[in-house]
Amino acid sequence: MTELTPRVVIVGAGFGGLNAAQALRRARVRVTVIDRQNHHLFQPLLYQVATAALNPSDIASPVRRILRHQANAEVLLAEVSAIDLARQRVVLDDGAMAYDFLIVATGATHSYFGHDDWAQFAPGLKSIPDALEIRRRVLFAFEAAEREPDPARRRSWLTFVVVGGGPTGVELAGALSEIARHALAKDFRHIDPTQAHVILLEGTNHILPAFVAPLPEKGRRQLERLGVDVRTGQIVTAIDAAGVAIGPDRIEARTVLWAAGVAASPLARTLGVELDRAGRVRVEPDLTVPGHPEVAVIGDLAHFDQDGALVPGVAPAAIQEARHAARNVVRSLRGQPRLPFRYRDKGSLATIGRAAGIAQIGRVRLSGLVAWLAWLFIHILFLIGFRNRVFVLFSWAWSYVTYDRGARLITGPPHRDENAIGKTPG
Amino acid sequence: MTELTPRVVIVGAGFGGLNAAQALRRARVRVTVIDRQNHHLFQPLLYQVATAALNPSDIASPVRRILRHQANAEVLLAEVSAIDLARQRVVLDDGAMAYDFLIVATGATHSYFGHDDWAQFAPGLKSIPDALEIRRRVLFAFEAAEREPDPARRRSWLTFVVVGGGPTGVELAGALSEIARHALAKDFRHIDPTQAHVILLEGTNHILPAFVAPLPEKGRRQLERLGVDVRTGQIVTAIDAAGVAIGPDRIEARTVLWAAGVAASPLARTLGVELDRAGRVRVEPDLTVPGHPEVAVIGDLAHFDQDGALVPGVAPAAIQEARHAARNVVRSLRGQPRLPFRYRDKGSLATIGRAAGIAQIGRVRLSGLVAWLAWLFIHILFLIGFRNRVFVLFSWAWSYVTYDRGARLITGPPHRDENAIGKTPG
Repeated sequence: MTELTPRVVIVGAGFGGLNAAQALRRARVRVTVIDRQNHHLFQPLLYQVATAALNPSDIASPVRRILRHQANAEVLLAEVSAIDLARQRVVLDDGAMAYDFLIVATGATHSYFGHDDWAQFAPGLKSIPDALEIRRRVLFAFEAAEREPDPARRRSWLTFVVVGGGPTGVELAGALSEIARHALAKDFRHIDPTQAHVILLEGTNHILPAFVAPLPEKGRRQLERLGVDVRTGQIVTAIDAAGVAIGPDRIEARTVLWAAGVAASPLARTLGVELDRAGRVRVEPDLTVPGHPEVAVIGDLAHFDQDGALVPGVAPAAIQEARHAARNVVRSLRGQPRLPFRYRDKGSLATIGRAAGIAQIGRVRLSGLVAWLAWLFIHILFLIGFRNRVFVLFSWAWSYVTYDRGARLITGPPHRDENAIGKTPG
Repeated sequence: MTELTPRVVIVGAGFGGLNAAQALRRARVRVTVIDRQNHHLFQPLLYQVATAALNPSDIASPVRRILRHQANAEVLLAEVSAIDLARQRVVLDDGAMAYDFLIVATGATHSYFGHDDWAQFAPGLKSIPDALEIRRRVLFAFEAAEREPDPARRRSWLTFVVVGGGPTGVELAGALSEIARHALAKDFRHIDPTQAHVILLEGTNHILPAFVAPLPEKGRRQLERLGVDVRTGQIVTAIDAAGVAIGPDRIEARTVLWAAGVAASPLARTLGVELDRAGRVRVEPDLTVPGHPEVAVIGDLAHFDQDGALVPGVAPAAIQEARHAARNVVRSLRGQPRLPFRYRDKGSLATIGRAAGIAQIGRVRLSGLVAWLAWLFIHILFLIGFRNRVFVLFSWAWSYVTYDRGARLITGPPHRDENAIGKTPG
């Protein structure tokens, strides 16, 4: 291919970006995928890394390896700082790259609803470093409790608050409760990890609000059976190193995890086009940016209304949009008109602990073990890279049989919280 | 057990500390194992983590899990800052702990022979964070080369220098060469990873000097067959961000790894007893500290002469010393005299790439595939924790068949070296 071959730049190698690149594999274009990480992340399983059941490499695959055999694609490890629509180029940390077509798929990050100072006390879960930081905090909390002679302070080390009752929060809370009740149960001498208190806080009146009745209620009961203290209608008003405030009430907890809000990637702001309240780009029916048919926005970064509702920020939507945007690129090159996008909802699933979950697939509603098996099957099927699928299945089978969590390593700085620990017993 | 039961404090949960604790499982003592990491590390396989073949949790196991069923043992995640021989207590970062018997097994760390400023340019390999940092630098170097249009600078990104021709240096160099020639061969568009230049620098005239002739020479030939440029008699005189100087000569290399020197853990200095030049404690024939029969020093931290030679800093020696020190604790409690230690050399092995190696076991000398299989068998046998053994075998079988390195994730800060990268091509 010569320099005259049109260049399609794809920013972001998540579900959207990667599927867009792959959908262009037979097109006469040069594809450049730019991401600031060298790996594609299977985000739905990230909570398993945070809770020490899986290793990072079980759920992540180098982008280069995934696209190794796609001759028209190259991968660039770089950070895109801005998009210059007028000059048709993306601005990198150390240069710029021109495009003929651009697909923006940089997704979303945490939102603390204007309280960015909460981030240090309540980390969210979006990347592998996030997951390892959460793992470090959780495992360290049990170590600190083991050393803490004061009962009140010990209790606050053994209290874990998860803020946000969506699928991520539910999955995290369920897995935390299982760690304490099974994986760590016999490991300590001065504390009883099964006495750990896992609290799930949700601002609205229902956890898992994206599911139809009676699934949210079933999910709540399954979670409570795992020992999670589910509290709905609780709006968090302050978070600090020692706990969480809900109006006048306070929960003393050394470990607070954030699964409440998402905000679009800040790259959207550099486009200079209209954004919604969460910072997403309001796209045209064909997923392009108003006035710029050569630029599409897909995935969690796109605000796409369909029949009066927003297309949800889930992987299947990003994948459908990616394929659609790629097809429109090919149609434009052929001089054909671009087609409008239409989202097809194939269902939702959430897992709750090691053998429970809820699912809605078309008109079918599942809960309990059946939903969990459906979830397991679908997620392993979509895990990218055969090695990962084999390893993850094997890891899961192992933890299922033994209740063991193999990846229980604290690998961060050993004593970040040292000032907070009490005197050593004995 | 009451508070009157004697307390044995063990500092360090490496091969020495852990085996000492386990050897005391039937003794009427309270055992406290203190380590600043929560995991025991199978250090002989650490280079496999650094070269992205294994995950951290494949070669590390939480100390608590290993000692879970040993009722007389407890584990403390803490840093020991000093040992107070006179008052019989160890000083922690946040308190102190009294002992009746003490076993010190804090091992060794890197030594840059007085050039501590080299550490930032040439990381060593002692811990999981070290291994992940080396992995990050190696993978990032290929990414940077892909973006670098200037041929000389590109070549320096594709040059990898390993300083030190002992087993760790040899293993690292062999694995690096394999990554470039196989795992990454097809992943890039602007560079050819098989053109990477891996240089092993050794100051003496032979690599693998601990082995008897003709094994060092055989090892060298196997390494050269893997494409490693082995250079002996090369004393490094300077290291900076862009390369290595050997007297008047210079090698331009963006990635330099340190496998040359070890120094005893600085904790030894707080004992106030005689140390050797490398900072090791000169122990009595029964492994105790002169004048303090209640304190034993074992493993890499101990200087133990036997028949005019120093017992080497290898895992089998640490394990033998650990069991011996534990037995002497029990004998002391029974009023029996302590026994002198005697090291039994069971042989040495080193692996060179994916199907070669050298071994001396008694009078037997092995090289090539047979040595590699012996190494594989022994190392998997000694990996602590059955899960790890199964997973590592499985990972190895996988990489062996596919030449794939599954753990190729860059998870550190994404752009630490950003100023060093050239302009983006295209």
